[in-house]
Amino acid sequence: MSAKIQNLQELRDQLRAFVAERDWQQFHTPKNLASALSVEAAELLEPFQWLKTGEIDELNVETHTAIRHEMADVLNYLVMLADHLDVDLLDAATEKIQLNAQKYPVQAARGLALKYTELKK
Amino acid sequence: MSAKIQNLQELRDQLRAFVAERDWQQFHTPKNLASALSVEAAELLEPFQWLKTGEIDELNVETHTAIRHEMADVLNYLVMLADHLDVDLLDAATEKIQLNAQKYPVQAARGLALKYTELKK
Amino acid sequence: MSAKIQNLQELRDQLRAFVAERDWQQFHTPKNLASALSVEAAELLEPFQWLKTGEIDELNVETHTAIRHEMADVLNYLVMLADHLDVDLLDAATEKIQLNAQKYPVQAARGLALKYTELKK
Amino acid sequence: MSAKIQNLQELRDQLRAFVAERDWQQFHTPKNLASALSVEAAELLEPFQWLKTGEIDELNVETHTAIRHEMADVLNYLVMLADHLDVDLLDAATEKIQLNAQKYPVQAARGLALKYTELKK
Repeated sequence: MSAKIQNLQELRDQLRAFVAERDWQQFHTPKNLASALSVEAAELLEPFQWLKTGEIDELNVETHTAIRHEMADVLNYLVMLADHLDVDLLDAATEKIQLNAQKYPVQAARGLALKYTELKK
Repeated sequence: MSAKIQNLQELRDQLRAFVAERDWQQFHTPKNLASALSVEAAELLEPFQWLKTGEIDELNVETHTAIRHEMADVLNYLVMLADHLDVDLLDAATEKIQLNAQKYPVQAARGLALKYTELKK
Repeated sequence: MSAKIQNLQELRDQLRAFVAERDWQQFHTPKNLASALSVEAAELLEPFQWLKTGEIDELNVETHTAIRHEMADVLNYLVMLADHLDVDLLDAATEKIQLNAQKYPVQAARGLALKYTELKK
Repeated sequence: MSAKIQNLQELRDQLRAFVAERDWQQFHTPKNLASALSVEAAELLEPFQWLKTGEIDELNVETHTAIRHEMADVLNYLVMLADHLDVDLLDAATEKIQLNAQKYPVQAARGLALKYTELKK
Protein backbone atom coordinates (compact mmCIF):
# COMPACT_ATOMS: atom_id res chain seq x y z
CA MET A 1 0.00 0.00 0.00
CA SER A 2 2.25 2.78 1.20
CA ALA A 3 5.84 3.21 0.06
CA LYS A 4 8.56 1.73 2.24
CA ILE A 5 9.54 4.19 4.95
CA GLN A 6 13.15 5.21 5.31
CA ASN A 7 13.61 6.55 8.81
CA LEU A 8 12.14 7.29 12.23
CA GLN A 9 10.75 10.68 11.12
CA GLU A 10 8.63 9.00 8.48
CA LEU A 11 7.46 6.44 11.02
CA ARG A 12 6.51 9.27 13.38
CA ASP A 13 4.52 10.92 10.59
CA GLN A 14 2.63 7.68 9.83
CA LEU A 15 1.83 7.29 13.52
CA ARG A 16 0.64 10.90 13.84
CA ALA A 17 -1.75 10.35 10.93
CA PHE A 18 -2.99 7.02 12.31
CA VAL A 19 -3.75 8.56 15.70
CA ALA A 20 -5.30 11.77 14.33
CA GLU A 21 -7.67 9.89 12.01
CA ARG A 22 -9.01 7.96 15.02
CA ASP A 23 -9.09 10.96 17.35
CA TRP A 24 -6.96 9.09 19.82
CA GLN A 25 -4.73 12.00 20.92
CA GLN A 26 -6.99 12.41 23.96
CA PHE A 27 -5.81 9.01 25.29
CA HIS A 28 -2.15 9.46 24.39
CA THR A 29 -0.76 11.25 27.38
CA PRO A 30 2.94 10.50 27.92
CA LYS A 31 1.96 8.56 31.04
CA ASN A 32 -0.44 6.36 29.10
CA LEU A 33 2.04 5.87 26.27
CA ALA A 34 4.76 4.85 28.73
CA SER A 35 2.31 2.44 30.30
CA ALA A 36 1.34 0.95 26.94
CA LEU A 37 5.00 0.68 25.94
CA SER A 38 5.72 -1.22 29.14
CA VAL A 39 2.83 -3.61 28.50
CA GLU A 40 4.08 -4.28 24.95
CA ALA A 41 7.61 -4.89 26.25
CA ALA A 42 6.21 -7.55 28.59
CA GLU A 43 4.24 -9.11 25.74
CA LEU A 44 7.53 -9.25 23.86
CA LEU A 45 9.13 -11.03 26.81
CA GLU A 46 6.27 -13.53 27.15
CA PRO A 47 7.17 -15.93 24.32
CA PHE A 48 10.75 -16.16 25.66
CA GLN A 49 9.88 -16.89 29.28
CA TRP A 50 10.23 -20.68 29.30
CA LEU A 51 12.85 -20.93 26.54
CA LYS A 52 16.55 -21.61 27.10
CA THR A 53 17.95 -18.70 25.08
CA GLY A 54 15.37 -17.69 22.49
CA GLU A 55 17.99 -17.83 19.73
CA ILE A 56 16.48 -17.76 16.27
CA ASP A 57 16.62 -21.56 15.78
CA GLU A 58 14.62 -22.11 18.99
CA LEU A 59 11.69 -20.07 17.58
CA ASN A 60 9.12 -21.42 15.14
CA VAL A 61 7.75 -19.19 12.40
CA GLU A 62 4.59 -18.21 14.29
CA THR A 63 6.55 -17.25 17.39
CA HIS A 64 9.08 -15.28 15.35
CA THR A 65 6.26 -13.37 13.68
CA ALA A 66 4.56 -12.69 17.01
CA ILE A 67 7.83 -11.40 18.47
CA ARG A 68 8.39 -9.21 15.41
CA HIS A 69 4.95 -7.65 15.90
CA GLU A 70 5.57 -7.00 19.58
CA MET A 71 8.88 -5.34 18.70
CA ALA A 72 6.94 -3.16 16.28
CA ASP A 73 4.51 -2.19 19.03
CA VAL A 74 7.37 -1.23 21.33
CA LEU A 75 8.97 0.92 18.62
CA ASN A 76 5.69 2.57 17.70
CA TYR A 77 4.90 3.58 21.28
CA LEU A 78 8.49 4.71 21.77
CA VAL A 79 8.31 6.95 18.69
CA MET A 80 4.97 8.41 19.81
CA LEU A 81 6.33 9.10 23.29
CA ALA A 82 9.45 10.70 21.82
CA ASP A 83 7.20 12.90 19.70
CA HIS A 84 5.32 14.12 22.80
CA LEU A 85 8.46 14.73 24.83
CA ASP A 86 10.60 16.26 22.06
CA VAL A 87 13.22 13.53 22.29
CA ASP A 88 15.47 12.75 19.34
CA LEU A 89 15.77 8.99 19.74
CA LEU A 90 18.99 8.50 17.78
CA ASP A 91 20.71 11.33 19.65
CA ALA A 92 19.52 9.97 22.98
CA ALA A 93 20.66 6.45 22.08
CA THR A 94 24.17 7.49 21.13
CA GLU A 95 24.46 9.75 24.15
CA LYS A 96 23.50 6.78 26.33
CA ILE A 97 26.10 4.55 24.68
CA GLN A 98 28.74 7.18 25.49
CA LEU A 99 27.56 7.38 29.11
CA ASN A 100 27.68 3.59 29.36
CA ALA A 101 31.16 3.56 27.87
CA GLN A 102 32.26 5.70 30.82
CA LYS A 103 30.40 3.60 33.39
CA TYR A 104 31.65 0.34 31.90
CA PRO A 105 35.29 0.90 30.82
CA VAL A 106 36.50 -1.95 28.60
CA GLN A 107 39.25 -3.10 31.00
CA ALA A 108 37.03 -3.28 34.06
CA ALA A 109 33.88 -4.62 32.42
CA ARG A 110 35.30 -7.15 29.95
CA GLY A 111 33.46 -10.48 30.21
CA LEU A 112 31.52 -9.45 33.33
CA ALA A 113 27.76 -9.03 33.75
CA LEU A 114 28.06 -6.79 36.79
CA LYS A 115 26.46 -3.49 37.56
CA TYR A 116 28.88 -0.59 37.17
CA THR A 117 28.74 0.01 40.91
CA GLU A 118 30.23 -3.46 41.41
CA LEU A 119 33.13 -3.14 38.95
CA LYS A 120 36.71 -2.89 40.17
CA LYS A 121 38.16 0.49 39.38
CA MET B 1 33.39 12.32 20.16
CA SER B 2 31.82 10.26 17.38
CA ALA B 3 29.95 11.80 14.47
CA LYS B 4 26.19 12.10 14.74
CA ILE B 5 24.55 8.91 13.58
CA GLN B 6 21.92 9.03 10.87
CA ASN B 7 19.85 5.88 11.13
CA LEU B 8 19.11 2.63 12.95
CA GLN B 9 21.78 0.71 11.02
CA GLU B 10 24.47 3.02 12.32
CA LEU B 11 23.06 2.67 15.83
CA ARG B 12 23.16 -1.12 15.46
CA ASP B 13 26.82 -0.90 14.38
CA GLN B 14 27.73 1.24 17.39
CA LEU B 15 25.99 -1.24 19.69
CA ARG B 16 27.74 -4.21 18.08
CA ALA B 17 31.10 -2.57 18.67
CA PHE B 18 30.25 -1.64 22.26
CA VAL B 19 29.21 -5.21 23.08
CA ALA B 20 32.10 -6.88 21.26
CA GLU B 21 34.73 -4.73 22.99
CA ARG B 22 33.36 -5.85 26.37
CA ASP B 23 32.89 -9.51 25.34
CA TRP B 24 29.25 -9.29 26.37
CA GLN B 25 27.78 -11.35 23.49
CA GLN B 26 27.75 -14.35 25.86
CA PHE B 27 25.10 -12.62 28.02
CA HIS B 28 23.05 -11.25 25.12
CA THR B 29 20.71 -14.10 24.31
CA PRO B 30 17.42 -12.89 22.82
CA LYS B 31 15.70 -14.00 26.01
CA ASN B 32 18.03 -11.90 28.17
CA LEU B 33 17.75 -8.91 25.82
CA ALA B 34 13.94 -9.12 25.91
CA SER B 35 14.12 -9.29 29.68
CA ALA B 36 16.44 -6.27 29.87
CA LEU B 37 14.23 -4.33 27.45
CA SER B 38 11.21 -5.04 29.64
CA VAL B 39 13.07 -3.83 32.74
CA GLU B 40 14.08 -0.61 30.98
CA ALA B 41 10.49 -0.06 29.80
CA ALA B 42 9.36 -0.28 33.43
CA GLU B 43 12.10 2.16 34.48
CA LEU B 44 10.74 4.48 31.82
CA LEU B 45 7.26 4.13 33.30
CA GLU B 46 8.44 4.73 36.86
CA PRO B 47 8.79 8.54 36.77
CA PHE B 48 5.24 8.81 35.34
CA GLN B 49 3.50 6.58 37.87
CA TRP B 50 2.13 9.21 40.25
CA LEU B 51 1.78 12.04 37.71
CA LYS B 52 -1.51 13.18 36.18
CA THR B 53 -0.48 13.01 32.51
CA GLY B 54 3.28 13.34 32.29
CA GLU B 55 2.96 16.08 29.67
CA ILE B 56 6.19 17.95 29.09
CA ASP B 57 5.26 20.88 31.39
CA GLU B 58 4.65 18.49 34.30
CA LEU B 59 8.28 17.23 34.08
CA ASN B 60 11.24 19.06 35.53
CA VAL B 61 14.57 19.05 33.71
CA GLU B 62 16.06 16.17 35.73
CA THR B 63 13.03 13.98 35.16
CA HIS B 64 12.95 14.78 31.47
CA THR B 65 16.61 13.82 31.16
CA ALA B 66 16.07 10.60 33.11
CA ILE B 67 13.13 9.69 30.87
CA ARG B 68 15.17 10.46 27.78
CA HIS B 69 17.90 8.08 28.98
CA GLU B 70 15.41 5.31 29.71
CA MET B 71 13.97 5.77 26.21
CA ALA B 72 17.50 5.40 24.87
CA ASP B 73 17.94 2.15 26.82
CA VAL B 74 14.71 0.77 25.40
CA LEU B 75 15.76 1.64 21.85
CA ASN B 76 19.24 0.20 22.32
CA TYR B 77 17.97 -3.15 23.60
CA LEU B 78 15.33 -3.20 20.87
CA VAL B 79 17.96 -2.65 18.18
CA MET B 80 20.20 -5.38 19.66
CA LEU B 81 17.30 -7.81 19.82
CA ALA B 82 16.32 -6.99 16.23
CA ASP B 83 19.91 -7.66 15.20
CA HIS B 84 19.79 -11.14 16.80
CA LEU B 85 16.42 -12.03 15.33
CA ASP B 86 16.92 -10.55 11.84
CA VAL B 87 14.06 -8.11 12.23
CA ASP B 88 13.93 -4.92 10.17
CA LEU B 89 12.37 -2.59 12.72
CA LEU B 90 11.01 0.01 10.31
CA ASP B 91 9.43 -2.67 8.12
CA ALA B 92 7.90 -4.37 11.15
CA ALA B 93 6.59 -1.07 12.49
CA THR B 94 4.85 -0.09 9.27
CA GLU B 95 3.46 -3.59 8.81
CA LYS B 96 2.00 -3.35 12.32
CA ILE B 97 0.42 0.02 11.59
CA GLN B 98 -1.28 -1.54 8.56
CA LEU B 99 -2.51 -4.48 10.64
CA ASN B 100 -3.84 -2.07 13.24
CA ALA B 101 -5.55 -0.03 10.55
CA GLN B 102 -7.54 -3.17 9.67
CA LYS B 103 -8.28 -4.05 13.28
CA TYR B 104 -9.27 -0.48 14.12
CA PRO B 105 -11.16 0.94 11.12
CA VAL B 106 -11.57 4.72 11.39
CA GLN B 107 -15.38 4.66 11.53
CA ALA B 108 -15.61 2.06 14.26
CA ALA B 109 -12.66 3.17 16.38
CA ARG B 110 -12.97 6.95 16.22
CA GLY B 111 -12.74 8.47 19.69
CA LEU B 112 -12.87 5.12 21.47
CA ALA B 113 -10.20 3.45 23.61
CA LEU B 114 -11.62 -0.04 23.17
CA LYS B 115 -9.92 -3.26 22.21
CA TYR B 116 -10.65 -4.24 18.60
CA THR B 117 -12.61 -7.24 19.85
CA GLU B 118 -15.03 -4.81 21.52
CA LEU B 119 -15.61 -2.50 18.56
CA LYS B 120 -18.95 -2.46 16.73
CA LYS B 121 -18.55 -3.82 13.22
CA MET C 1 -13.79 -29.00 44.63
CA SER C 2 -11.10 -28.30 47.20
CA ALA C 3 -11.79 -26.69 50.58
CA LYS C 4 -11.26 -22.96 50.88
CA ILE C 5 -7.64 -22.22 51.68
CA GLN C 6 -6.78 -20.13 54.69
CA ASN C 7 -3.32 -18.75 54.19
CA LEU C 8 -0.25 -18.38 51.98
CA GLN C 9 1.24 -21.69 53.17
CA GLU C 10 -1.77 -23.58 51.92
CA LEU C 11 -1.61 -21.70 48.64
CA ARG C 12 2.08 -22.64 48.33
CA ASP C 13 1.18 -26.28 48.92
CA GLN C 14 -1.48 -26.23 46.23
CA LEU C 15 0.98 -24.67 43.80
CA ARG C 16 3.67 -27.23 44.63
CA ALA C 17 1.23 -30.03 43.87
CA PHE C 18 0.04 -28.40 40.64
CA VAL C 19 3.60 -27.99 39.37
CA ALA C 20 4.79 -31.44 40.48
CA GLU C 21 1.88 -33.23 38.78
CA ARG C 22 2.82 -31.58 35.49
CA ASP C 23 6.58 -32.04 35.94
CA TRP C 24 7.08 -28.32 35.47
CA GLN C 25 9.79 -27.82 38.12
CA GLN C 26 12.37 -28.01 35.31
CA PHE C 27 11.03 -24.71 33.86
CA HIS C 28 10.57 -22.96 37.18
CA THR C 29 13.95 -21.42 37.81
CA PRO C 30 13.73 -18.27 39.93
CA LYS C 31 14.76 -16.29 36.85
CA ASN C 32 11.90 -17.74 34.79
CA LEU C 33 9.42 -17.25 37.62
CA ALA C 34 10.48 -13.60 38.02
CA SER C 35 10.09 -13.17 34.29
CA ALA C 36 6.61 -14.76 34.30
CA LEU C 37 5.59 -12.63 37.28
CA SER C 38 6.67 -9.50 35.45
CA VAL C 39 4.66 -10.52 32.38
CA GLU C 40 1.56 -11.12 34.51
CA ALA C 41 2.01 -7.76 36.23
CA ALA C 42 1.98 -6.10 32.81
CA GLU C 43 -1.13 -8.04 31.82
CA LEU C 44 -2.69 -6.70 35.00
CA LEU C 45 -1.76 -3.17 33.97
CA GLU C 46 -3.10 -3.59 30.44
CA PRO C 47 -6.84 -3.15 31.13
CA PHE C 48 -6.09 0.08 33.05
CA GLN C 49 -3.89 1.72 30.46
CA TRP C 50 -6.43 3.99 28.76
CA LEU C 51 -8.72 4.48 31.77
CA LYS C 52 -8.86 7.62 33.91
CA THR C 53 -8.42 5.97 37.32
CA GLY C 54 -9.60 2.36 37.08
CA GLU C 55 -11.80 2.79 40.15
CA ILE C 56 -14.26 -0.03 40.57
CA ASP C 57 -17.19 1.85 38.98
CA GLU C 58 -15.14 2.45 35.80
CA LEU C 59 -14.73 -1.34 35.30
CA ASN C 60 -17.37 -3.57 33.78
CA VAL C 61 -17.87 -7.12 35.12
CA GLU C 62 -15.72 -8.79 32.46
CA THR C 63 -12.84 -6.41 33.04
CA HIS C 64 -13.08 -6.79 36.80
CA THR C 65 -12.95 -10.57 36.44
CA ALA C 66 -10.00 -10.38 34.06
CA ILE C 67 -8.13 -8.12 36.48
CA ARG C 68 -8.93 -10.46 39.37
CA HIS C 69 -7.43 -13.37 37.41
CA GLU C 70 -4.29 -11.42 36.57
CA MET C 71 -3.91 -10.52 40.26
CA ALA C 72 -4.19 -14.23 41.03
CA ASP C 73 -1.43 -14.99 38.51
CA VAL C 74 0.83 -12.39 40.10
CA LEU C 75 0.25 -13.83 43.56
CA ASN C 76 0.78 -17.41 42.39
CA TYR C 77 4.12 -16.65 40.75
CA LEU C 78 5.15 -14.58 43.77
CA VAL C 79 4.38 -17.47 46.13
CA MET C 80 6.30 -19.93 43.93
CA LEU C 81 9.27 -17.60 43.74
CA ALA C 82 9.20 -17.11 47.51
CA ASP C 83 9.17 -20.89 47.91
CA HIS C 84 12.33 -21.21 45.78
CA LEU C 85 14.15 -18.38 47.52
CA ASP C 86 13.10 -19.18 51.11
CA VAL C 87 11.35 -15.85 51.54
CA ASP C 88 8.58 -15.42 54.10
CA LEU C 89 6.34 -12.99 52.23
CA LEU C 90 4.47 -11.55 55.21
CA ASP C 91 7.71 -10.96 57.10
CA ALA C 92 9.29 -9.34 54.07
CA ALA C 93 6.22 -7.16 53.49
CA THR C 94 6.12 -5.82 57.06
CA GLU C 95 9.88 -5.29 57.07
CA LYS C 96 9.51 -3.24 53.89
CA ILE C 97 6.72 -1.14 55.40
CA GLN C 98 9.01 -0.34 58.31
CA LEU C 99 11.85 0.59 55.95
CA ASN C 100 9.49 2.82 53.99
CA ALA C 101 8.27 4.43 57.22
CA GLN C 102 11.87 5.54 57.81
CA LYS C 103 12.40 6.70 54.23
CA TYR C 104 9.08 8.52 54.17
CA PRO C 105 8.54 10.13 57.59
CA VAL C 106 4.97 11.34 58.02
CA GLN C 107 5.88 15.02 58.40
CA ALA C 108 8.07 15.19 55.33
CA ALA C 109 6.03 12.93 53.04
CA ARG C 110 2.50 13.98 53.88
CA GLY C 111 0.50 14.65 50.72
CA LEU C 112 3.52 14.40 48.43
CA ALA C 113 4.22 11.85 45.70
CA LEU C 114 7.97 12.42 45.72
CA LYS C 115 10.81 9.96 45.88
CA TYR C 116 12.39 9.84 49.32
CA THR C 117 15.57 11.34 47.87
CA GLU C 118 13.57 14.46 46.98
CA LEU C 119 11.90 14.98 50.36
CA LYS C 120 12.87 17.86 52.60
CA LYS C 121 14.55 16.61 55.75
CA MET D 1 8.53 -2.76 66.79
CA SER D 2 5.13 -4.09 65.75
CA ALA D 3 3.99 -7.65 66.44
CA LYS D 4 4.47 -10.20 63.70
CA ILE D 5 1.51 -10.18 61.35
CA GLN D 6 -0.34 -13.41 60.67
CA ASN D 7 -2.23 -12.99 57.42
CA LEU D 8 -3.06 -10.84 54.42
CA GLN D 9 -5.85 -8.99 56.26
CA GLU D 10 -3.39 -7.73 58.85
CA LEU D 11 -1.00 -6.71 56.09
CA ARG D 12 -3.84 -4.82 54.40
CA ASP D 13 -4.58 -3.01 57.67
CA GLN D 14 -0.94 -1.99 58.11
CA LEU D 15 -0.88 -0.68 54.56
CA ARG D 16 -4.11 1.26 55.03
CA ALA D 17 -2.66 2.96 58.09
CA PHE D 18 0.65 3.72 56.34
CA VAL D 19 -1.12 5.34 53.41
CA ALA D 20 -3.68 7.25 55.48
CA GLU D 21 -1.00 8.75 57.77
CA ARG D 22 0.76 10.15 54.70
CA ASP D 23 -2.44 11.25 52.95
CA TRP D 24 -1.45 9.22 49.90
CA GLN D 25 -4.91 7.85 49.03
CA GLN D 26 -5.19 10.64 46.44
CA PHE D 27 -2.36 9.05 44.41
CA HIS D 28 -3.51 5.47 44.88
CA THR D 29 -5.98 4.99 42.06
CA PRO D 30 -6.18 1.36 40.90
CA LYS D 31 -4.52 2.44 37.67
CA ASN D 32 -1.57 3.99 39.51
CA LEU D 33 -1.29 1.01 41.85
CA ALA D 34 -1.26 -1.41 38.90
CA SER D 35 1.40 0.74 37.30
CA ALA D 36 3.51 0.77 40.45
CA LEU D 37 3.09 -2.98 40.88
CA SER D 38 4.31 -3.51 37.34
CA VAL D 39 7.37 -1.31 37.95
CA GLU D 40 8.21 -3.27 41.12
CA ALA D 41 7.81 -6.57 39.27
CA ALA D 42 10.36 -5.37 36.74
CA GLU D 43 12.72 -4.28 39.52
CA LEU D 44 12.35 -7.81 40.89
CA LEU D 45 13.31 -9.21 37.48
CA GLU D 46 16.30 -6.89 37.10
CA PRO D 47 18.80 -8.75 39.35
CA PHE D 48 18.03 -12.01 37.50
CA GLN D 49 18.44 -10.71 33.99
CA TRP D 50 22.02 -11.81 33.26
CA LEU D 51 22.04 -14.86 35.55
CA LYS D 52 21.77 -18.47 34.37
CA THR D 53 18.91 -19.56 36.65
CA GLY D 54 18.87 -17.33 39.73
CA GLU D 55 18.78 -20.35 42.03
CA ILE D 56 19.54 -19.45 45.61
CA ASP D 57 23.23 -20.47 45.43
CA GLU D 58 23.78 -18.11 42.48
CA LEU D 59 22.68 -15.11 44.60
CA ASN D 60 24.91 -13.34 47.09
CA VAL D 61 23.45 -12.01 50.35
CA GLU D 62 22.98 -8.45 49.08
CA THR D 63 21.17 -9.61 45.97
CA HIS D 64 18.97 -11.99 47.94
CA THR D 65 18.01 -9.16 50.28
CA ALA D 66 17.30 -6.82 47.39
CA ILE D 67 15.10 -9.45 45.73
CA ARG D 68 13.27 -10.07 48.99
CA HIS D 69 12.50 -6.35 49.26
CA GLU D 70 11.23 -6.19 45.69
CA MET D 71 8.99 -9.18 46.39
CA ALA D 72 7.65 -7.29 49.39
CA ASP D 73 6.90 -4.26 47.21
CA VAL D 74 5.00 -6.44 44.74
CA LEU D 75 2.95 -8.00 47.52
CA ASN D 76 2.23 -4.65 49.14
CA TYR D 77 0.95 -3.08 45.93
CA LEU D 78 -1.04 -6.22 45.16
CA VAL D 79 -2.73 -6.11 48.57
CA MET D 80 -3.52 -2.39 48.18
CA LEU D 81 -4.97 -2.97 44.72
CA ALA D 82 -7.04 -5.91 46.00
CA ASP D 83 -8.35 -3.65 48.76
CA HIS D 84 -9.51 -1.06 46.19
CA LEU D 85 -11.11 -3.61 43.89
CA ASP D 86 -12.70 -5.84 46.55
CA VAL D 87 -10.69 -8.87 45.51
CA ASP D 88 -10.05 -11.71 47.96
CA LEU D 89 -6.55 -12.69 46.88
CA LEU D 90 -6.54 -16.25 48.28
CA ASP D 91 -9.92 -17.01 46.70
CA ALA D 92 -8.81 -15.55 43.38
CA ALA D 93 -5.55 -17.53 43.50
CA THR D 94 -7.22 -20.88 44.13
CA GLU D 95 -9.88 -20.17 41.52
CA LYS D 96 -7.08 -19.48 39.01
CA ILE D 97 -5.32 -22.73 39.90
CA GLN D 98 -8.55 -24.58 39.18
CA LEU D 99 -8.97 -22.78 35.85
CA ASN D 100 -5.38 -23.63 34.95
CA ALA D 101 -5.95 -27.26 35.92
CA GLN D 102 -8.66 -27.36 33.26
CA LYS D 103 -6.56 -25.54 30.65
CA TYR D 104 -3.51 -27.70 31.38
CA PRO D 105 -4.72 -31.27 32.03
CA VAL D 106 -1.98 -33.41 33.52
CA GLN D 107 -1.80 -35.88 30.64
CA ALA D 108 -1.53 -33.26 27.92
CA ALA D 109 0.70 -30.78 29.74
CA ARG D 110 3.14 -33.07 31.52
CA GLY D 111 6.72 -31.96 30.96
CA LEU D 112 5.78 -29.34 28.34
CA ALA D 113 6.17 -25.57 28.52
CA LEU D 114 3.53 -24.88 25.88
CA LYS D 115 0.60 -22.52 25.92
CA TYR D 116 -2.69 -24.32 26.46
CA THR D 117 -3.74 -23.40 22.92
CA GLU D 118 -0.80 -25.48 21.64
CA LEU D 119 -1.43 -28.63 23.70
CA LYS D 120 -2.66 -31.84 22.07
CA LYS D 121 -6.16 -32.63 23.22
